[in-house]
Amino acid sequence: MTTYKKAGVLGATGSVGQRFILLLANHPQFKLHAIGASKRSAGKKYIDACTWKQTDLMPSNVEDLIVSECTYDSFKDCDVVFSGLDADVAGDVEKSFVDNGLVVISNAKNYRRDENVPLIVPIANSEHLQMIENRLKNNPDTKGYQICISNCSTAGLVAPLKPLVDKFGPLQFVSTTTLQAISGAGFSPGVSGIDVLDNIVPYISGEEDKIEWEAKKILGSLNNDATQFILDDELKVSAQCNRVAVSDGHTECVSFKFKNQPAPSLDEIKTCLRDYICEAKLLNCHSAPEHAIHVLEQLDRPQPRLDRNRDSGYGVSVGRIRPDPIFDYKMVILSHNTIIGAAGSGVLIAELLLAKNLI
Amino acid sequence: MTTYKKAGVLGATGSVGQRFILLLANHPQFKLHAIGASKRSAGKKYIDACTWKQTDLMPSNVEDLIVSECTYDSFKDCDVVFSGLDADVAGDVEKSFVDNGLVVISNAKNYRRDENVPLIVPIANSEHLQMIENRLKNNPDTKGYQICISNCSTAGLVAPLKPLVDKFGPLQFVSTTTLQAISGAGFSPGVSGIDVLDNIVPYISGEEDKIEWEAKKILGSLNNDATQFILDDELKVSAQCNRVAVSDGHTECVSFKFKNQPAPSLDEIKTCLRDYICEAKLLNCHSAPEHAIHVLEQLDRPQPRLDRNRDSGYGVSVGRIRPDPIFDYKMVILSHNTIIGAAGSGVLIAELLLAKNLI
Amino acid sequence: MTTYKKAGVLGATGSVGQRFILLLANHPQFKLHAIGASKRSAGKKYIDACTWKQTDLMPSNVEDLIVSECTYDSFKDCDVVFSGLDADVAGDVEKSFVDNGLVVISNAKNYRRDENVPLIVPIANSEHLQMIENRLKNNPDTKGYQICISNCSTAGLVAPLKPLVDKFGPLQFVSTTTLQAISGAGFSPGVSGIDVLDNIVPYISGEEDKIEWEAKKILGSLNNDATQFILDDELKVSAQCNRVAVSDGHTECVSFKFKNQPAPSLDEIKTCLRDYICEAKLLNCHSAPEHAIHVLEQLDRPQPRLDRNRDSGYGVSVGRIRPDPIFDYKMVILSHNTIIGAAGSGVLIAELLLAKNLI
Amino acid sequence: MTTYKKAGVLGATGSVGQRFILLLANHPQFKLHAIGASKRSAGKKYIDACTWKQTDLMPSNVEDLIVSECTYDSFKDCDVVFSGLDADVAGDVEKSFVDNGLVVISNAKNYRRDENVPLIVPIANSEHLQMIENRLKNNPDTKGYQICISNCSTAGLVAPLKPLVDKFGPLQFVSTTTLQAISGAGFSPGVSGIDVLDNIVPYISGEEDKIEWEAKKILGSLNNDATQFILDDELKVSAQCNRVAVSDGHTECVSFKFKNQPAPSLDEIKTCLRDYICEAKLLNCHSAPEHAIHVLEQLDRPQPRLDRNRDSGYGVSVGRIRPDPIFDYKMVILSHNTIIGAAGSGVLIAELLLAKNLI
Repeated sequence: MTTYKKAGVLGATGSVGQRFILLLANHPQFKLHAIGASKRSAGKKYIDACTWKQTDLMPSNVEDLIVSECTYDSFKDCDVVFSGLDADVAGDVEKSFVDNGLVVISNAKNYRRDENVPLIVPIANSEHLQMIENRLKNNPDTKGYQICISNCSTAGLVAPLKPLVDKFGPLQFVSTTTLQAISGAGFSPGVSGIDVLDNIVPYISGEEDKIEWEAKKILGSLNNDATQFILDDELKVSAQCNRVAVSDGHTECVSFKFKNQPAPSLDEIKTCLRDYICEAKLLNCHSAPEHAIHVLEQLDRPQPRLDRNRDSGYGVSVGRIRPDPIFDYKMVILSHNTIIGAAGSGVLIAELLLAKNLI
Repeated sequence: MTTYKKAGVLGATGSVGQRFILLLANHPQFKLHAIGASKRSAGKKYIDACTWKQTDLMPSNVEDLIVSECTYDSFKDCDVVFSGLDADVAGDVEKSFVDNGLVVISNAKNYRRDENVPLIVPIANSEHLQMIENRLKNNPDTKGYQICISNCSTAGLVAPLKPLVDKFGPLQFVSTTTLQAISGAGFSPGVSGIDVLDNIVPYISGEEDKIEWEAKKILGSLNNDATQFILDDELKVSAQCNRVAVSDGHTECVSFKFKNQPAPSLDEIKTCLRDYICEAKLLNCHSAPEHAIHVLEQLDRPQPRLDRNRDSGYGVSVGRIRPDPIFDYKMVILSHNTIIGAAGSGVLIAELLLAKNLI
Repeated sequence: MTTYKKAGVLGATGSVGQRFILLLANHPQFKLHAIGASKRSAGKKYIDACTWKQTDLMPSNVEDLIVSECTYDSFKDCDVVFSGLDADVAGDVEKSFVDNGLVVISNAKNYRRDENVPLIVPIANSEHLQMIENRLKNNPDTKGYQICISNCSTAGLVAPLKPLVDKFGPLQFVSTTTLQAISGAGFSPGVSGIDVLDNIVPYISGEEDKIEWEAKKILGSLNNDATQFILDDELKVSAQCNRVAVSDGHTECVSFKFKNQPAPSLDEIKTCLRDYICEAKLLNCHSAPEHAIHVLEQLDRPQPRLDRNRDSGYGVSVGRIRPDPIFDYKMVILSHNTIIGAAGSGVLIAELLLAKNLI
Repeated sequence: MTTYKKAGVLGATGSVGQRFILLLANHPQFKLHAIGASKRSAGKKYIDACTWKQTDLMPSNVEDLIVSECTYDSFKDCDVVFSGLDADVAGDVEKSFVDNGLVVISNAKNYRRDENVPLIVPIANSEHLQMIENRLKNNPDTKGYQICISNCSTAGLVAPLKPLVDKFGPLQFVSTTTLQAISGAGFSPGVSGIDVLDNIVPYISGEEDKIEWEAKKILGSLNNDATQFILDDELKVSAQCNRVAVSDGHTECVSFKFKNQPAPSLDEIKTCLRDYICEAKLLNCHSAPEHAIHVLEQLDRPQPRLDRNRDSGYGVSVGRIRPDPIFDYKMVILSHNTIIGAAGSGVLIAELLLAKNLI
């Protein structure tokens, strides 16, 4: 007989929250216990409070759930709380939850740079969860903690770079130009139609800075007693971000150079990525991708419409790996921004926590 | 009283050819004298031979022009011949025209790397036409010669880089990721709808190699007696090319580093680009842009839909110029691929030739 | 020496207002005298108050105009005031302007059904302005009056139907399904990108009712002394409205049946539309289209991208006129929703008023 | 232990053929036995012969199937053959297959109007298969027969109309305007990108005639001994067809009027559609939709992106049912053109044949 863990979702009516709901509604290990939204929605049935915009229909078993306010009282029995709150409210709410002993996995940017908070792409740097493991072991009275999901375009970028760093040593340069899907901007109103019809918007507020900073934490390391993150400050990352007319799936054109020269061969790079199995898969996590990285050999792939759903959106596709005239190699990465780049990663992180007995 | 120069257009029914027709139909200096297409179209009126796909209506004065085959006899009286032929037929036809004494300005790739053929972006490196000037002066019997228009994405890239090189010395690195419009692929059938709806195609056959090579010729120089092009072989260019759902206008995210360090300041860069006046403008060429380079200060510009038509598509827009963590600077360039990147450049080159008494 | 009429624009920073600004900035008969917007924008330069979203650049001579509030005092010297105000504020502002003696041409819906207000598509029913002509003649002290521009999809629909009604008598049935451009919804935020990417929204709030009612007024008539509009209440109109991924240009698939049978022949229909010259053209109004109706014979036309700009957007295209198995005929109409369907019509109406000495 | 029926697919590398492959690769009742394509592809592995363009990945168990030519010999052991052939070759191939005793279910238009061939939308008029049932019973030696899948936009149209006709009697008028997805045009090259970007094409060759004719056969009946189809010649259907920028899912704006007046009430219409269960569901066919018709009450639905996958594309969505000023009612229908409008219907027809012991 299965015992479900009780899950809460903050910001349940928003675009990230809807994805959490979709992924949790029929999850074999978690059961939706509390869903929170703004005061305006509180007290309503989910189906009435929510303008559902997903291509999958709203799961029938969540339609009648009653939305509560995002207060500790409503979530106090949750084993884990997923937060899809906007940054302007996430800070205070999440802090009070953690202070009160809850486990919060957040998609908001507020605590990503906090030195006590792991910033996790679950198919890439799940070993950073060791900080939590040690903290709980060393402080038996501590119960609450926070984990942050990385920015969506950071997730796609580091997914194939992390196994390369683990195998071939640190990178010196990473240059990425992103072509990002509109679902990343939510939908009330999100990106305006006139901005993406026959158009490109070569700017996403704050995005380039997020990539350039977060990559250093995720590709960095933990100190020996797992109490501190060591940012890879020698790594230089340059990002240029664009919004394009794609519904789901961020494409990134990436060039990179290793610190140790000579760099590994093209074959070594491909073999490393092809053979990579993420820890979540080794631990048999429910949502873990069979292949965290799909190495595509067709000349014109990956493409969002054709490749974004590999391994249910938990697999990242990499194509056109080839030598770069300036750096060592260049390649095209495609990742599903709302799965591995947001809510999906949150759920996979929770599955990892469960597998590691941290919830 | 104006005396018109007689103009011919090869490949007149194709997408590039239609643009030549549009630009020449009411040109104050050129008059359409001969238009050529495949055997299948020869003998027909232009309006019957052509599936017109331009957003401007077909000029009424070309509707009844009779299409001829692309043979020398039909074009022998032309002062200048514009070629929109596909690469698979351009080679022989253009060579025979030049050998017979005609001036050919071609959009095809066939002779771009020929050491006797100037590769011209008319708002950037018109001084390379000096090779022709000297050749004609030194060989009074020579009449025919060939000039190549650069690849469309190369044109946009070098337009702002050339004035910078002229002022601050050679570049060491140029890294560009392009987001290219579908009009660049023609329209019979061109890019398939299913490939650009909710999608990106991260590959354009041959395009990256063209950019990486052509930039070295255009940003290079002529030797002292103007008989030989000196490629900038120390410049390293890396390109990644994508096809996106935009009708007209190539966007490029570019990073670059100067050879001479310290690099010029951000202000010096902007001032150089703002103050740049191209030779075609100084010579009062009809189509020359008031501003070859438009420096935009808004955070989210340039955008194809809003900026591609600056200076009738002959002006290139540059925005978001800012320091780059790896190179010196990064920026976003937008150029109209069928104007400054193809037919429009051909016409402006012809205007330059006329201003320089080379036709 | 030209004497300009002083023009005011209400709601000048909105999408309709921006179009008014574009059309008036270099108009040979009108000069921008006052531009009004919300309290938040008042006192600022237009370039600072406005998020410009037009594909044509902001005219340089309006950049420094100071935005005022929409109060009578700021507009009292205007010969004509164009209103791009939203319906929730248009009612009171416009009424106070008219009561104070100003001439207001409004794009808002508020007074369209007022029995004292002409509802005008200037290429179709300009004779309805006779009500104003008579009123001013009979009431020499009256100065202010109101004219309404029709709804955008109504304009395209009635443009070709009005000449047919004038020639062949009233219609019994008109059935239309619209495919409407997103520019019709404004842009702050307007239609959300996710709603029109790989999608159709088969609903536009209030639109079907507007078409079904307004057509009866515009295709109706004036009584003998031009004091009252006689709605064509025997005409039955059915509309179904869709929002599609088109920037500008409303497409309508229309079927119609005449009251008088047998109906005119296909040739008679086409000839009537081809020969139609609108009154504005006969009066040599500056913006009047050479052809108010363009009858296209190509099988697959009209198309928004190719045909929306005919006669600078003042010409309506009609194609695929053919017998209908249920009604008499069916056809496809394309009209530029922001020109003939909104601000453009406002300007042409003002030109008509000037030609008729009503301002 | 399951015994699989042997299935063949003609035109297996084309867009319809790929869909057949997807639906059959892991079907519980059918096993892919032979796949045919052009001479050029014959002898190759499917993965090498095919440019796969589906959003679902190619099933691994079909990758190595060897493509044969479309000759009887290669398919003679098949229990049922699905044809995705183009009309220009389908006629002869399918006839020879049937003459040789094979059962052919075809998506091609060639035999749809043949009086001996049922034209089937399996969620609507499966009772028309009785003609085959009787024929086989009365002619024990006959083995081969042909069944045609209807045109894609016809399928969506008749799906909700058929239950209404069955309950409330024949229709007098049906007027439909379609907004059709590009996948309906295949993809080599299919619809050109430039034709659907910021555009509508208001014409699809042959489509309107197909709808207007096929509806009369499908909404018609069989004579008493099931040997002859009785077309509903009193029904008048008018169609206007448009191609729009949607990948999958045909939207239709439909008005209709019953022959018997007074017409049923709005409630009766909705109840009839909501309660309708198709015969395939009653027979427990594997792919049969839980709800053949989904009646949506939200104001702005159905929408292609949100509703096309209901019941895996076998369910048709109907929204905005409301009175029509001219006819009885108007409504919006959405159907998945490659599932219920093409290959999916073929597979469901085969499941019906199996349930009825006809293969």
